[in-house]
Amino acid sequence: MKKEPENLIPAIEDILKAAKRIKPFINHTPVLTCKSLNRMVDASIYFKCENFQKVGAFKFRGASNSVYSLSDEEARCGVATHSSGNHAQALSLAAKNRGIGAYIVMPKDAPEIKIKAVQGYGGEITFCEPNLAAREEGLAKIVNKTGATFIHPYNDPRVIAGQGTVTLELLEEVRKLDAVMAPVGGGGLLSGTALTLSSLSPETKIIGVEPKGADDAYRSLHQGKLIPSVNPNTIADGLLTSLGDLTFAIIKRYVHLIVTVSEDAIISSMRHIWERMKMVIEPSAAVPFAALLEDKIDLKGKRIGLILSGGNVDLDKLPWLG
Amino acid sequence: MKKEPENLIPAIEDILKAAKRIKPFINHTPVLTCKSLNRMVDASIYFKCENFQKVGAFKFRGASNSVYSLSDEEARCGVATHSSGNHAQALSLAAKNRGIGAYIVMPKDAPEIKIKAVQGYGGEITFCEPNLAAREEGLAKIVNKTGATFIHPYNDPRVIAGQGTVTLELLEEVRKLDAVMAPVGGGGLLSGTALTLSSLSPETKIIGVEPKGADDAYRSLHQGKLIPSVNPNTIADGLLTSLGDLTFAIIKRYVHLIVTVSEDAIISSMRHIWERMKMVIEPSAAVPFAALLEDKIDLKGKRIGLILSGGNVDLDKLPWLG
Repeated sequence: MKKEPENLIPAIEDILKAAKRIKPFINHTPVLTCKSLNRMVDASIYFKCENFQKVGAFKFRGASNSVYSLSDEEARCGVATHSSGNHAQALSLAAKNRGIGAYIVMPKDAPEIKIKAVQGYGGEITFCEPNLAAREEGLAKIVNKTGATFIHPYNDPRVIAGQGTVTLELLEEVRKLDAVMAPVGGGGLLSGTALTLSSLSPETKIIGVEPKGADDAYRSLHQGKLIPSVNPNTIADGLLTSLGDLTFAIIKRYVHLIVTVSEDAIISSMRHIWERMKMVIEPSAAVPFAALLEDKIDLKGKRIGLILSGGNVDLDKLPWLG
Repeated sequence: MKKEPENLIPAIEDILKAAKRIKPFINHTPVLTCKSLNRMVDASIYFKCENFQKVGAFKFRGASNSVYSLSDEEARCGVATHSSGNHAQALSLAAKNRGIGAYIVMPKDAPEIKIKAVQGYGGEITFCEPNLAAREEGLAKIVNKTGATFIHPYNDPRVIAGQGTVTLELLEEVRKLDAVMAPVGGGGLLSGTALTLSSLSPETKIIGVEPKGADDAYRSLHQGKLIPSVNPNTIADGLLTSLGDLTFAIIKRYVHLIVTVSEDAIISSMRHIWERMKMVIEPSAAVPFAALLEDKIDLKGKRIGLILSGGNVDLDKLPWLG
């Protein structure tokens, strides 16, 4: 019998355990500030830099927690997933760290830079057509053949608990945050963020930010039911996915607000962060600051934690170069 | 009577005083490491990230030390310089911090991004023809008119003492370095680096790295006399300048080795650091790692401090995009 999503929501203890479990493997990423960006939006922003995480994204936390949660017997058969990028890289490296196999089903139109990265971390790729049905079919075949454990990119309590450790670290360094902002794709990062904050800093507002062109979380939250995106379209390629039932259940219960931003604001945000902070971030990571640039929410004078989700960019294709 | 350059060489006490003087104003920049880059060149590299310094370059240290070394009477008339970029920005911000004027003579073909930055920091720009004679003439006029103190971009003991604080911070975090590498343009950074190391870590090799297309330090050191570059040409626009008599005197006495690198290696080094470390660095900052990529010097297995000099790049003109 399938468990109801409400019964799968990780507790704060799961996040604390995850932090301990993955500590030897992850980077404790820095929290950075930038006066000129603060001035630009009239707020005090604490950027949690998961672009400096291993494999260049927070995804390595959830992947590591999942891989190291497996029993030895389960682990022996490896892990598997379908993913267009960062989760695939993250799972490949986490599996390599544990000395087990990682079977990755990827759409054949995935960016070259991400394919190479997965291969570089030792992931074994099977390509499929770029649609969800083909991915799921490819995955089922591989799981069937290898006995590998499927690790979903976000709709999995182990993954969500791992992503919750980003905000644990943030709170260790900065207290009394008025709000924390995170981008929303499948909702794994925002769910982990929400669970950590609701337990450890309940006075902090939890804000998800989404591209207008992939606004399923915004619409789902407003209509009170899961409405997946149809043909989402945004430069923020990490946010094309739609919420799952578990991440939706968490977001519905704990997140205070979802706002959406334009493509222009995402590109402008990305460029400002590159220019002012001298950091490479991917478009998805630029989404929360875009909401401040567009004045989508009034956080003037507030202390804001902002999660920069990753830094995996194809340097041959920068969005402002048209 | 003009002092001999040998009599102007800062002592370690001057560098320690500079550190104390500029501490309230500068960023204490992080020292970062990257396993994949280490593997690439088979060494342990400690990157001192002056791309995260205020105004995006180490130049802010020397400029701040100079501005705050002035007596109140001297300071009242402001400071002046000729510079194509980072020093101009740095001096403008340092002057603004002290509440005094900064008069900047800039070649009229200076990159737009650098002109805007100087103006953003409150520097007052006078444009001139892009040659040394025009710059010096423009500067003389302004000094004459305003009584401002000329702060040379590198050939000045106060500036050199300020740049020496980069390596003070590096040594606080990492000991037992086999070598420290810095890029060479006018030689201010390398001079400061050399003075700090020769006093506090005399066993560490001091290595300057220069683009082949602007190799005046390499040639000057080999021939034992100052040979300025004629029509230097390199993507590393911060390194087009030639040594001054003071920086040459210091480099001749303390630096163990100068090596030169190709343009291809500089571009490749820059891209590797962006991709792997998720940091924006300018081409000049990529020059030392280029020497390791090109195997210009045998440092296999060694512990290397490497100064990333700055991160001011025009994001519309990336070298690998041709």
